[in-house]
Amino acid sequence: MSAEPRHIVSVEPFTRDYLQRVFTITDEMDLMVQTRGRTGLLDDCVVALLFYEPSSRTMLSFQSAAQRLRAGVLFAQGRDGSSMKKGESIEDTIRVVASYSDLIVMRHWEHGAAERAASISTVPFINGGDGGNEHPTQALIDAYTIHRELGRLDDLHVVFGFDPRHSRSIHSLALLLSRGQNMRLTFVSPDELRMPPWLRERLAARNVVVEETSALAGSAEADVLYVNRLQQERFASPADFERLRRKFVVTPELLDGSSAIVLDPLPRIDEIDLAVDALPNAKYFEQVAHGVPLRMALLAMLLDRR
Amino acid sequence: MSAEPRHIVSVEPFTRDYLQRVFTITDEMDLMVQTRGRTGLLDDCVVALLFYEPSSRTMLSFQSAAQRLRAGVLFAQGRDGSSMKKGESIEDTIRVVASYSDLIVMRHWEHGAAERAASISTVPFINGGDGGNEHPTQALIDAYTIHRELGRLDDLHVVFGFDPRHSRSIHSLALLLSRGQNMRLTFVSPDELRMPPWLRERLAARNVVVEETSALAGSAEADVLYVNRLQQERFASPADFERLRRKFVVTPELLDGSSAIVLDPLPRIDEIDLAVDALPNAKYFEQVAHGVPLRMALLAMLLDRR
Amino acid sequence: MSAEPRHIVSVEPFTRDYLQRVFTITDEMDLMVQTRGRTGLLDDCVVALLFYEPSSRTMLSFQSAAQRLRAGVLFAQGRDGSSMKKGESIEDTIRVVASYSDLIVMRHWEHGAAERAASISTVPFINGGDGGNEHPTQALIDAYTIHRELGRLDDLHVVFGFDPRHSRSIHSLALLLSRGQNMRLTFVSPDELRMPPWLRERLAARNVVVEETSALAGSAEADVLYVNRLQQERFASPADFERLRRKFVVTPELLDGSSAIVLDPLPRIDEIDLAVDALPNAKYFEQVAHGVPLRMALLAMLLDRR
Repeated sequence: MSAEPRHIVSVEPFTRDYLQRVFTITDEMDLMVQTRGRTGLLDDCVVALLFYEPSSRTMLSFQSAAQRLRAGVLFAQGRDGSSMKKGESIEDTIRVVASYSDLIVMRHWEHGAAERAASISTVPFINGGDGGNEHPTQALIDAYTIHRELGRLDDLHVVFGFDPRHSRSIHSLALLLSRGQNMRLTFVSPDELRMPPWLRERLAARNVVVEETSALAGSAEADVLYVNRLQQERFASPADFERLRRKFVVTPELLDGSSAIVLDPLPRIDEIDLAVDALPNAKYFEQVAHGVPLRMALLAMLLDRR
Repeated sequence: MSAEPRHIVSVEPFTRDYLQRVFTITDEMDLMVQTRGRTGLLDDCVVALLFYEPSSRTMLSFQSAAQRLRAGVLFAQGRDGSSMKKGESIEDTIRVVASYSDLIVMRHWEHGAAERAASISTVPFINGGDGGNEHPTQALIDAYTIHRELGRLDDLHVVFGFDPRHSRSIHSLALLLSRGQNMRLTFVSPDELRMPPWLRERLAARNVVVEETSALAGSAEADVLYVNRLQQERFASPADFERLRRKFVVTPELLDGSSAIVLDPLPRIDEIDLAVDALPNAKYFEQVAHGVPLRMALLAMLLDRR
Repeated sequence: MSAEPRHIVSVEPFTRDYLQRVFTITDEMDLMVQTRGRTGLLDDCVVALLFYEPSSRTMLSFQSAAQRLRAGVLFAQGRDGSSMKKGESIEDTIRVVASYSDLIVMRHWEHGAAERAASISTVPFINGGDGGNEHPTQALIDAYTIHRELGRLDDLHVVFGFDPRHSRSIHSLALLLSRGQNMRLTFVSPDELRMPPWLRERLAARNVVVEETSALAGSAEADVLYVNRLQQERFASPADFERLRRKFVVTPELLDGSSAIVLDPLPRIDEIDLAVDALPNAKYFEQVAHGVPLRMALLAMLLDRR
C-alpha cells in the first residue's frame, strides 16, 4: 500500500490511487449508514471540530460523520470565543488542541492557516477551508460525485462558474481535476471575478485545456456544470451585484437538450433556478449528501481504521 | 394503532389518544432516567438540533433527551453562522440537513418556518418554536404537567397571563386545551397585549369559554394559573413596561387560600414573586424537568422506537 | 475516606489529602487515555457545560474529559443565547439545568456566580471560572504540573507574573500553594496590576512569605515561574500597554542558567518569547495537556465513580 497523506491540507498530493481508495471506502460508509445508521469504528477516538469561520454544511457533515462513526466530538464555533481573538497564534492553538484530541478539523478565515496548522500538529489534521485558498474535502466530494455519476475523472469538459476568483471550492476542484487525462476546464464569470493568478499559473503547468469567458451560453454542452453563488460582499457596487446575479443563472432553458450534470457546493442563492431541481441534470442534493460518507472515509483513513 | 403524526409542527393534529400515548411513554422515560440514566434506544440514530434563534431550555432539554437516548447529535446555533444568513432558503437547508441526519429539530425566528420545513423534510421534523406562531413541544410539556398534577384535561379553568399576544407557549397550550370538555380559558393581560386575532378566531370555533381581562384579581380561583414574562422588547415605552411589570405578578397574597397550580414556561423574570417558590402551588420547576422525558418520548415515537 | 467536596467552587477547601487523591486519579486517567482512548466510566451520565463567557482551553478540555469518559454532553455557549440575557437569575438557570443533567460546569462573567450556583444546585457543580474571582480547576492543573515536575508542593519559591490583579488563575494557584510548608510567593507586575486587596489579606493570614515587585530580573532563581498575559482591555492607555508588554517577557536570557520550570495557563501572547519553547524549562504545553486527565478525575470523583 502506497503512503497516504497524514494531513489533508490541499488537493495537490492526491494521487489517482488515493482517490480510488477514498471512493471505495466512501461507498462502504454509505452502505453502512443506510443499513446500520452508525458504527463503532472510531468509538475510542475524540475528534476536534474547530470552526472559526461560519459554515453550515462542512460543520454539520463533519459532525454527522464523527457521530456515525461514534467518535467523541470537541466543538468550537466562531472567532469571538476563540483564543485567537485574544491574540494566540495558530501554532499554539493547534499544539493545545492536539493534546486534547486524536484528530483536528479546522476551518479558518486566513489563506494558508491550514498549512501552518498541519506543520505543527502532532495528530492528523484536516483543512475544512482556509480563507480563499483551498477546500480539499469539498473537492473530494465533488470528484466523488462526478465519478459516481459519470464513471470517470478523465475525458471531461467541466464548466466552472460563477466566481472563480474567490471560490475555494472551485480552486480545489479545478486543481484536482487537472490531474486527469484529456481534460477541458472552462471558467465562466463576470470579468471582475476571473480566477486568481496563482491558480492560473498552476493550471498552466498542467496538461489541461483552460478557457476563461464571460459568456454563459453553451455551458450546458459540457459534461459537468459546476456553479457557486456570487458573493455579494465581494462587490464594491450593489448595482453591479444586482445586474450580474440575474445574468449568471442556470435555468431549464440553458439545460434544454443537455445531459450535463449540475453541481453546486451550496448554499444556492440565485445561481440555479428552482425549476432546475426537478430536472435529471440536478445532482447538487446528491452531491451534498455524499459529504457524510466521504468525510467518514477520511476520518477512518487518517486514524488508520481503514 | 391509529396514525401518529410524522412531523410535529402544531398542536392542532394531536388527538386525545395521541396525548395519552405521549404521556404514557413520558412516564416510562422518566422512570428510565431515574433508574438507569441513559438507554440505547436511539443509539443507531443521529438527530440534528438547529437553533437559529436563541433558546436555553428548549435547546438544552432536547440535547439532554438525545443524550439520554444515546443518539448522535448535530448541533447548529445562531443565525449568523447559518447558511440562511447567506440567503439560503429554509427548504434548501432542510433538504441538506435531512441528508445528514435521521430527525430534525428546528427553532426559527419566522412565523410559519416549521410548516415550510416539514413540507420538504424527508426525515421526521419537530418544531422547536417558530417566531410568534407555535411551540408544540412546550404545550405537550405543559399539558403533561397539568394531567400529572390534576389527573385530567377536561373540566378545567385555566388562566393565561401575561402576554397572550406574543407568547407562542400560550398560543399552543390554549389551542391544545381547547379540545377538552367543559373548558374555561381566561386571558389576563394589559390591554395592549391581548391575544392575536388569528388565535381568537380559532378558539371561537371551539366548544370552550374564552374570557379576556386586564384584572389579575381572582385569577387564583382557577385550577391552573399559567404565566409568562412580559417581553420588554415588545414595548414602545420603557415607562409602560416598568409600570406593567410591577402590576402583573403572581404573589403569595394572590394565591392565599388557592389550590391553583402555577405554571411558567420560564425564564421567570418578574411575573412570579420569589416567595411563591416555596408554596405548594408552585409547579414550574417540576414542569421544566418534564421537558427531558417528554422530548425523549417524542424522539423515540417519531423514530418508531416506541 | 475523608469527606470530599460535593461542588468545586474555590480552592480553599482542598486539603493535602484531597490533592493527593486528585493527582493519583489524574495519573490513572492519563494512562487510560494513552492506552485505550476512552472509557465508559460515565457512560450513564449527562454533564452540562455552560460557557457564558468565552473560553477555549477550559471549554475544549472539559468537552474532551467528558467524551473520554463517554458521558453525554449538554453544551451552551455565549451570553447572548442564554436566558440570563433575558433577565433570568443564576439560581433559576441552575435549578433548570440541574433537572436536565447529572453535573454542571459553568463559566460565568460575574465574580461570585459560582458560589451562588453551587448553593442552589441539586447536582455536583464545578466552577469553570467566575469573573475575576477564581478558577479552581486551573489551579489544580497547575499544582499537579508542579508536583509532577518537582515532586513536591512544599519548600518552593514561586514567581507569579504579570497580572496578579486580574488573573483568576494566579489568584487560585496562589491561594492553593499558600497551604504548603516553607513557601515563598513573589508577584511580579507593573505597579498598576498588583494583586487585589482581598487576595493580599487572605495570603497575609497564612504562613507564607509574600513579595510584590515590578522587577523581573532575578525571577528565574525561583523554582517555578508562572506567567500570564497582560490583558490589553485592562489598560486605559494603549501606550502604557505597548510599553509594558515588551518589558514583561520571559526570554532565554532571563532563563540563562536557571532550572526554574516555566508555566502559563495560556493563551500565550507576548509574555513568553517563542525561543523559550525549545528550552527544558518550558512546561506550559505539558501543563495544558494535563487539563484533560485532571478534569476527567474531577468529573469521575464528583459523580462517585472513583
